[in-house]
Amino acid sequence: MNLVLLHPEDLLNGSQARLTGRRFRHIVEVHRAAAGDALAVGMLGGRIGSGRVIKLGDAALDLDISFDRDPPEPLSFTIVLALPRPKVLRRVLRSLTVLGVKRIVLMNAARVEKSYWQSPFLEREEIRRQLILGLEQAFDTILPEVLLRPRFKPFAEDELPGMLRDSVALVAHPGSSAPCPREVRRPVTLAIGPEGGFVPYELDILSACGFTAVSLGERVLNVETAIPALISRLA
Amino acid sequence: MNLVLLHPEDLLNGSQARLTGRRFRHIVEVHRAAAGDALAVGMLGGRIGSGRVIKLGDAALDLDISFDRDPPEPLSFTIVLALPRPKVLRRVLRSLTVLGVKRIVLMNAARVEKSYWQSPFLEREEIRRQLILGLEQAFDTILPEVLLRPRFKPFAEDELPGMLRDSVALVAHPGSSAPCPREVRRPVTLAIGPEGGFVPYELDILSACGFTAVSLGERVLNVETAIPALISRLA
Repeated sequence: MNLVLLHPEDLLNGSQARLTGRRFRHIVEVHRAAAGDALAVGMLGGRIGSGRVIKLGDAALDLDISFDRDPPEPLSFTIVLALPRPKVLRRVLRSLTVLGVKRIVLMNAARVEKSYWQSPFLEREEIRRQLILGLEQAFDTILPEVLLRPRFKPFAEDELPGMLRDSVALVAHPGSSAPCPREVRRPVTLAIGPEGGFVPYELDILSACGFTAVSLGERVLNVETAIPALISRLA
Repeated sequence: MNLVLLHPEDLLNGSQARLTGRRFRHIVEVHRAAAGDALAVGMLGGRIGSGRVIKLGDAALDLDISFDRDPPEPLSFTIVLALPRPKVLRRVLRSLTVLGVKRIVLMNAARVEKSYWQSPFLEREEIRRQLILGLEQAFDTILPEVLLRPRFKPFAEDELPGMLRDSVALVAHPGSSAPCPREVRRPVTLAIGPEGGFVPYELDILSACGFTAVSLGERVLNVETAIPALISRLA
């Protein structure tokens, strides 16, 4: 937790906040903060600044807060990701948030196991928890939007074409001979397949939508490695 | 497991191999291979080719194997990484292997918790297990070398300067205003700090060694996200 992310319900008034629970314990046990110490704070959805510990209790601490700057610039990326297995999903949501992605679509694909859609990690609160952890890591305050699209065809045919308008639309496909471009200075829509990749039928639909297949080379990266590698190459 | 990685002890003769245990179960349960099916195979430390299932038993399967190409080109990167916490270490070792890094140094730093050095995940067999998983993912056969350096100062002062000779030496430091360069077409030595970063004393020693501090921007990435992002930017 690099940034203490404040929620509206933490505010005692315009310049003070009270923290309990996970953030309280982290500040006491990991940061080992004492009264008088200053911590980086951000208002969820808002600005960033500093919070000075003014009272430290057994289960809560109070901060004097002030904000002086905007959160980091978001990336103009939409990530369209075949739903990964639940444990990977959690880390991937955090990683995408850390990287600054603000729109994430989790969609179905032929090689996504059906059971993944029943995972408790897909519940709104669980998703939000991972996004918050990502924001705290990256000194950011703006939650990404996460869309769930459990049916591939209607999503890809009806919704995706509108979503990728005016963006560079790429599908990461290890079989492609086109290298992933570098430093694209335009909005990007990046589709990433499941383990084993998209099936030809899906690639055809994505191609009809306007996606170009690109690859990072001969190696087939796992999704957790591929996501930061692709985004960093493109951004 | 994209590539079935064969070990010398699997060979029945020059053109046949027998698999048991984890790889046998994976091929049967995940690939659902039947007699006659062909799988991508690679010889540990050697070439890549194809293996046809010629016998499928309850606990073992036999493959007819032939090799026709070299593994993917390695990256000319040395990664000098402050030892991460054990669970992260496992994923990071896999990820570095997947990306094609062939030399990994796990070193101490002031913000590395001492207990991490006692982790069972640092045992030779555990490290090797993660590297093998990385090779199987990336269709590679060449194991990275992993060095453990539990004392920062003697390593950084006596060994590191020789190690980075003729390479571009960079230390990832979120506080730096120098952006991480792109597409460096030379060998790279990349130092990555612990959670919370290197302390100033360590940065001074690294700088005296010849490292230049670079950053990927305002966001502070977690190590699992930072590694593929940095390598992909630089490679």
